[in-house]
Amino acid sequence: MSKAADDGGVPGGRGEPAQQLGGEAAGGKLASKLSASSFTPGWTKVSCPCCASERVEPLVLVKLGQKAVPETKRWLIKLIGAPQKDGGAGLLAHPGEDATGNIIVLSAPRCTLLRATEELGLCKIYHTGEMEAFAYNDRDNFRNSDNMEVFLTLAERQYIIKYELDGLRAQKDLRIPGLPDSCTLQKRDNIWQKLGQVGVVVDTFPLHNPDKLKDLSESWYSGNQLTQPLDKVNEYFGSSVAFYFSFLDFYTWSLLPPAILGLFIAYFSTKDIDLHNLKAVFSMLWSTVVIELWKRRSSTLSYQWGTLNLAERFAEPRPGFHGDLGVNPVTGRVEPLFPEWKRDLRMALVSVPVVGLFLGLVVLGMMCFYWAEARVKWLHKDWDSMISQTFLYVPSVLHIVYTNMLATVYRTVATSLTEYENHREESAYDNHLTGKILVFTFFNNFAVLFHIAFFKQDVPLLRKRLASLLIITQLVNQVTEVVIPFLVDRFISAPHRSEREDDPKEDKFRNQGTLPTFPGLFAEYIELLVQFGYLSLFSCVFPLTAVLLLLNNLTEIRSDAYKICKLFRKPFYPPVASMGVWKVAFEVLSFVSVVSNCWLLLLSPRLQKTSQEAGMSGSHLLVGAVMVEHVLILVKVIMAALIPDEPDWIRKKREHIEYTSMQALRQQVRIYSKRISLKGK
Amino acid sequence: MSKAADDGGVPGGRGEPAQQLGGEAAGGKLASKLSASSFTPGWTKVSCPCCASERVEPLVLVKLGQKAVPETKRWLIKLIGAPQKDGGAGLLAHPGEDATGNIIVLSAPRCTLLRATEELGLCKIYHTGEMEAFAYNDRDNFRNSDNMEVFLTLAERQYIIKYELDGLRAQKDLRIPGLPDSCTLQKRDNIWQKLGQVGVVVDTFPLHNPDKLKDLSESWYSGNQLTQPLDKVNEYFGSSVAFYFSFLDFYTWSLLPPAILGLFIAYFSTKDIDLHNLKAVFSMLWSTVVIELWKRRSSTLSYQWGTLNLAERFAEPRPGFHGDLGVNPVTGRVEPLFPEWKRDLRMALVSVPVVGLFLGLVVLGMMCFYWAEARVKWLHKDWDSMISQTFLYVPSVLHIVYTNMLATVYRTVATSLTEYENHREESAYDNHLTGKILVFTFFNNFAVLFHIAFFKQDVPLLRKRLASLLIITQLVNQVTEVVIPFLVDRFISAPHRSEREDDPKEDKFRNQGTLPTFPGLFAEYIELLVQFGYLSLFSCVFPLTAVLLLLNNLTEIRSDAYKICKLFRKPFYPPVASMGVWKVAFEVLSFVSVVSNCWLLLLSPRLQKTSQEAGMSGSHLLVGAVMVEHVLILVKVIMAALIPDEPDWIRKKREHIEYTSMQALRQQVRIYSKRISLKGK
Repeated sequence: MSKAADDGGVPGGRGEPAQQLGGEAAGGKLASKLSASSFTPGWTKVSCPCCASERVEPLVLVKLGQKAVPETKRWLIKLIGAPQKDGGAGLLAHPGEDATGNIIVLSAPRCTLLRATEELGLCKIYHTGEMEAFAYNDRDNFRNSDNMEVFLTLAERQYIIKYELDGLRAQKDLRIPGLPDSCTLQKRDNIWQKLGQVGVVVDTFPLHNPDKLKDLSESWYSGNQLTQPLDKVNEYFGSSVAFYFSFLDFYTWSLLPPAILGLFIAYFSTKDIDLHNLKAVFSMLWSTVVIELWKRRSSTLSYQWGTLNLAERFAEPRPGFHGDLGVNPVTGRVEPLFPEWKRDLRMALVSVPVVGLFLGLVVLGMMCFYWAEARVKWLHKDWDSMISQTFLYVPSVLHIVYTNMLATVYRTVATSLTEYENHREESAYDNHLTGKILVFTFFNNFAVLFHIAFFKQDVPLLRKRLASLLIITQLVNQVTEVVIPFLVDRFISAPHRSEREDDPKEDKFRNQGTLPTFPGLFAEYIELLVQFGYLSLFSCVFPLTAVLLLLNNLTEIRSDAYKICKLFRKPFYPPVASMGVWKVAFEVLSFVSVVSNCWLLLLSPRLQKTSQEAGMSGSHLLVGAVMVEHVLILVKVIMAALIPDEPDWIRKKREHIEYTSMQALRQQVRIYSKRISLKGK
Repeated sequence: MSKAADDGGVPGGRGEPAQQLGGEAAGGKLASKLSASSFTPGWTKVSCPCCASERVEPLVLVKLGQKAVPETKRWLIKLIGAPQKDGGAGLLAHPGEDATGNIIVLSAPRCTLLRATEELGLCKIYHTGEMEAFAYNDRDNFRNSDNMEVFLTLAERQYIIKYELDGLRAQKDLRIPGLPDSCTLQKRDNIWQKLGQVGVVVDTFPLHNPDKLKDLSESWYSGNQLTQPLDKVNEYFGSSVAFYFSFLDFYTWSLLPPAILGLFIAYFSTKDIDLHNLKAVFSMLWSTVVIELWKRRSSTLSYQWGTLNLAERFAEPRPGFHGDLGVNPVTGRVEPLFPEWKRDLRMALVSVPVVGLFLGLVVLGMMCFYWAEARVKWLHKDWDSMISQTFLYVPSVLHIVYTNMLATVYRTVATSLTEYENHREESAYDNHLTGKILVFTFFNNFAVLFHIAFFKQDVPLLRKRLASLLIITQLVNQVTEVVIPFLVDRFISAPHRSEREDDPKEDKFRNQGTLPTFPGLFAEYIELLVQFGYLSLFSCVFPLTAVLLLLNNLTEIRSDAYKICKLFRKPFYPPVASMGVWKVAFEVLSFVSVVSNCWLLLLSPRLQKTSQEAGMSGSHLLVGAVMVEHVLILVKVIMAALIPDEPDWIRKKREHIEYTSMQALRQQVRIYSKRISLKGK
């Protein structure tokens, strides 16, 4: 895709076809002509008259595997185009250049989009100008509900297609045409999952829109902007990505005060020791303020982006969810059910012990490393040869290899564990998976530092280690995340892509398939969290941490933006209302930081010296530190309780949405229940 | 009222009239004849045909003051009887024995009750057997919605009358008939509040129902029941009272494990010291389990009693609330508005400093007491006479007087502060007032103990003080709460009441007015909280605490039940969904207990001796204690997070209620908004 967008800058030439195919918002008429004529045999027909439109916007590309014979493809296109009441996805499908090609291009008609908007629980602007929970029956009262490209964001339109595909379930036992007899679908089987398993569908990914992408990248990272175009990011990539960048932005600016204070202290550090303690106390309280303010900002963004009222738990369960068929007591629909206690039991008896085992392996690895290091040093002292010199590095290398291997194995194990826990909602699945990996990664990153701080109690070593970690990890991250993908794209993938110049329309779509998959926001968030850990847990030993992080993050914003726009396939992300489990992780860290900082302050040689001079015993100093710690935690808890999690005006808007739905219930005579009661009589 | 209920046991005699007037559920026909004939001129007419009923149940008594001339009374009865759309209360009124008497008896017609049920957001049983949020429009689908005495509890019917009276607002500027010209009502003035201020209405209280009361008391405290009839308590006194007794019950039974452990340890204490530490750790974790389980029980009760979905914040503001008229952004109604930031400012700049000042005065008093005690002891040593002997008691007496005066002043100050904070909802007002008094009372009760534990570090003194406090406060409480009111009632009030034998019907009502007002649940809750404080904060120094408390509470249940049934007027209590701020107080205490217990364990002479024998320094011991404390707090936090606050089936029911209201919103085309949009075109 990077080529397509690059070309967009050059008028004429190869840029034109791209605009014709992808640039619906700008060149709508051109594209509609194109989709009606040049594509053979064209888009599937829509079933309802209100959705009939001359313009069809290609949104999602499905890549078929070797197994998909033309018969299967025809069946698939028919299935995708069939109305939902007949078990189809209610979407629009286009077979690509010809019926035998291995791609299907998808789009969605208005009715499907609007119904899914209601199902997802998205809020949209009502004709009064307020955000209201969207209701299909009331669609005419919502602004722009006749123009899908304004009413829904690109990310929402594309996600809805994935949502509909994932929701496809076999209405009866069925053999997939063109496939061997072994590939049959049982009733209520998830069709899309099955098609992936048998190799018919290899890939499903949303298409980039070159015009919008160009517009976005110009206002995001090309110039010297201080602010990010967050609404545009939300429009293009969806609220998950937009929340990440909003948080990155917010967090970076919030580093300014500790950075200034850090510089100030670094300058005056020789004159007054109390400044260090002041800085530590300031950091500890600052982290709570930042997190509370972020919660407010987050709820404001969620309101703006219409995700305040998501109704995931009322929607269909996620594709991987399985259970006995039954009536959902909440919604009254027939769907697979899985008892809560069984899930809790699985978590308690399987997940927790396994995660604990891996954490134990991390500690074991660390202990082996220390033992081996001591052993090798002792050997080196004994022998003092070139060989023993090289041996000195063996434990470190082994430890790094071990840690990396463990992390890889753990990731697979965590995924299976979370799959086994059988969560009903996508977000619950994500949160549990993220939580598991997060605990491990965090442990993996901080075990050594904690060991130095609490067992070795060696503050200078801690300082040295922290400074080197800060600088090295940041460099390594930037290189692995951006430089390597950039080089791979430029010198390996790009020449490969530009070969097929003869068929640019289809190639544009196919080319996006050759880009690597976006690795997900997990790595980005964990990077921030580890940063935040360095800053909050150990900041009092190295006051310039905030300065280094501020500098790093200012470049990180741009490199992350460049990366997601240019180097990867466009990812699917569901609409979300917040950062989810990450917020909790940052909050926990901010409380742990009080304990660690108080301990480090207690260890600081200066304080030890001062207190000895003042004739305080070690016990007194310890009691003092414990009291300071308790007071700080109390202050943080009170601050967190006192600062409201959402601004007053958002609270009112949210309550208004709740009130409206309550009023609706009251004004309505529930006819469907009346019918049942009449039957009963 | 105690007499009336006592009489109920004797067939014939004075018991009959009581049954005729109050015992509607049982003697419905008798009473209806009575209300139609013997009362002159009888009940006001109802305006809507569906509410016309032969039976009217007297629910609430209004006592008029000296200022209320017959003209005023007639106006008042008309106002109360007028439909709500004409600015009336939509209730039924009866002028008592004659038009010049100083009482008005109130009841409510079906429509008013049902509409208020909707407004309060009560849940009732739908025809499907599920609890659903009641909707007036859908009333025919709710079970028993034609029989108010089954559909609503007695407490709910009575509270609704108070709710309607409190909601009376002047529709235009108005002179109150029969009163001097100075007593005028401005538009939107709260009428009932104003009538109270000018002395027209002296008292408004709900009437006891002798039959139901007799039934309740028999199943509650007369026999040797182990369980309380909580549903009946909820039916008769409302959910606030029922929640108190449920909690008392739950808490008492939860004392069993620590009491058994305490007895066990007291028996084996000489043999093994580790048992004490075990007991302390057990108590600390036990308190979290108890509170979490109570939350689950509480939500179950709330579901049973239909208060899961209360809609207070969408209802009219409470009577004392004032502000500039404006459009409520949530409900769109015109009502007084008061900005949130102003309230926050008032709390931060006025309430917090004033409360802090009073806490400071408590500490100051304690310090003066210690100073004076030392001074007097020194004087006594010097002089050693009878006079100096008596002087020894002066500081204690002065301190007690000072503390009590301070508490009285503080209560007044706290009420004005909370009034000044201008909360919109009754529950917010209650919670803030309770919170303020709670902090002070708690401080007042525990300051001395904390001083002994943390500053004097004198464990034997603490143990002595704790044991005496436990026994003395319990005795004092039982005496002041039950014995004194009982004696007053029996020997002072009762003879006074029985004088007017000639007019029993009216006297039954009037007699209830001579009973003292119920002092509220605050004193009951604070007693439990202080108990819980003794138990959780200092239990490790006196292992028999739980045993003493268990014994106390078993009698407390009965005496409290007797008290509320017999010794006081029936109180008004709004439906509530939980214990409110008290739950938080118990939770906070349970966390503070970890800190205090770890400290006390550290101070314990046995541990000090053992560690010295083991060659541990004081610092090591301290670090150990701090680590244990942190781990315990972590375990408590994790336990609190892991135990769900509501049982799975309640969560599903609640989600079902939410889902239904969301579905209603979706299925409904909002015509009222369409009308506006059509007008706009």
